[in-house]
Amino acid sequence: MDPADRAARMIALFERAPLPLHLGMTLRFDDDFHAIIEVPHADFLDHGLGQVHGGIFATLIDSAAWFAAAVHYDPWISTVDFHVRLLEPVAGEDLAATGSVVRIGRSLAAADAEVRTAAGRLVAVGGGTFAVTGVPYT
Amino acid sequence: MDPADRAARMIALFERAPLPLHLGMTLRFDDDFHAIIEVPHADFLDHGLGQVHGGIFATLIDSAAWFAAAVHYDPWISTVDFHVRLLEPVAGEDLAATGSVVRIGRSLAAADAEVRTAAGRLVAVGGGTFAVTGVPYT
Amino acid sequence: MDPADRAARMIALFERAPLPLHLGMTLRFDDDFHAIIEVPHADFLDHGLGQVHGGIFATLIDSAAWFAAAVHYDPWISTVDFHVRLLEPVAGEDLAATGSVVRIGRSLAAADAEVRTAAGRLVAVGGGTFAVTGVPYT
Amino acid sequence: MDPADRAARMIALFERAPLPLHLGMTLRFDDDFHAIIEVPHADFLDHGLGQVHGGIFATLIDSAAWFAAAVHYDPWISTVDFHVRLLEPVAGEDLAATGSVVRIGRSLAAADAEVRTAAGRLVAVGGGTFAVTGVPYT
Repeated sequence: MDPADRAARMIALFERAPLPLHLGMTLRFDDDFHAIIEVPHADFLDHGLGQVHGGIFATLIDSAAWFAAAVHYDPWISTVDFHVRLLEPVAGEDLAATGSVVRIGRSLAAADAEVRTAAGRLVAVGGGTFAVTGVPYT
Repeated sequence: MDPADRAARMIALFERAPLPLHLGMTLRFDDDFHAIIEVPHADFLDHGLGQVHGGIFATLIDSAAWFAAAVHYDPWISTVDFHVRLLEPVAGEDLAATGSVVRIGRSLAAADAEVRTAAGRLVAVGGGTFAVTGVPYT
Repeated sequence: MDPADRAARMIALFERAPLPLHLGMTLRFDDDFHAIIEVPHADFLDHGLGQVHGGIFATLIDSAAWFAAAVHYDPWISTVDFHVRLLEPVAGEDLAATGSVVRIGRSLAAADAEVRTAAGRLVAVGGGTFAVTGVPYT
Repeated sequence: MDPADRAARMIALFERAPLPLHLGMTLRFDDDFHAIIEVPHADFLDHGLGQVHGGIFATLIDSAAWFAAAVHYDPWISTVDFHVRLLEPVAGEDLAATGSVVRIGRSLAAADAEVRTAAGRLVAVGGGTFAVTGVPYT
């Protein structure tokens, strides 16, 4: 299976995945197989002081990095660990995370992601390590 | 204001915070002011293969570490960065994250958190750095 | 091989390992197989403003966490990633890092470490992820 | 003071900094003020199995990210935390780390770094958070 076929399969998977649906996130890939997760602003994304919750940035970064790596493997990959740096607070703006591959290894992958507002402001960055499993998707 | 007063104020804040409400999370503090975030399992916490999404572990860890630190400060603190290690997959189990202080500094705080299933299985660990702001809560 | 035998073998390995020798570090294990790396202060540990360099804290944390995990495996483990939080600057004090296991898995391990001055002041914390390889120690 | 003046001052500082001297590291900046730390291979950089020690990658990444950020500030900045992903083992090869700015804030900066062998192979990546202090350099 090539990355384009996997990308189509992953978008289908994402569209029925519970947490992304619950948060209003969508997935697409660009021509270089960067994974792009978008989420329009909604009040339920916020913490108690009316800004987007750190957990949302983490979810965006984990997801975008995961799909950017996973599109290069036939079996499922699992997130081993990830880190997030929150650069600026966000209130009321739509967000998009873009995931990029750092390294596609035999048993481990590394990928990064950045989160920008719809206006292009860089608001969070992060990345993770992912383990290649023997688990197929279907 | 002392930690017990701040803890009560924070629980009130948390109970009306949009993302925790949307995910079904509750907050309490133990006698040593560890912050405990609990979330009963719900389908909307899962990724596409039916296990709890990494973003949920990150949200639990960011939140538990944040409250464990924040209870020691009068002004608001902001998350600078955090990291998460996902130790074992979880399917269908209730979760609780416990946050602990590492260091309460003048301008920066450090706190850790661990996530366990209701049965006590350790499934994720992490921690973060938080900056003391001049912003009051109310 | 049991942890006590591995510990003895690891101390022998450490005592001839080039970087630890070059930096003056020593290794021991306590009765619970926590790994303890000690380094007496020396000028060559410092950055340009006369405090201990961040790279030394990272080396201590990577090493202490690595040995705390490795003592539980027969084959070699390799560091996948690690993170470090520098809590307080240190000038002219001896340091000791203590590594503790978080999880011993089949293919991946997690361990943490903290660094204290000889006087017991907590100055840095961190942890990492380690992959179990098929490489023997010989 | 502009970045070019600060870069010259930092190189002078680095050339007499104890740990970099002890490890054989040199610093330069490119025209875009990326910080480049180079280290020729030496046996004392290795761990007990004859490959470059993780602490060296961490030292390179902390240093390159630190200088990439610090060149944009008049006062001293201090490393708050950093993380490192070790992508491939290295044995006997010269290394160069390149640091890049992610964000230059009023009180906090973020910067990343990557480490490549002389042949251009990407072997480690990482990044950190840095706090702006009131401490002048001299």
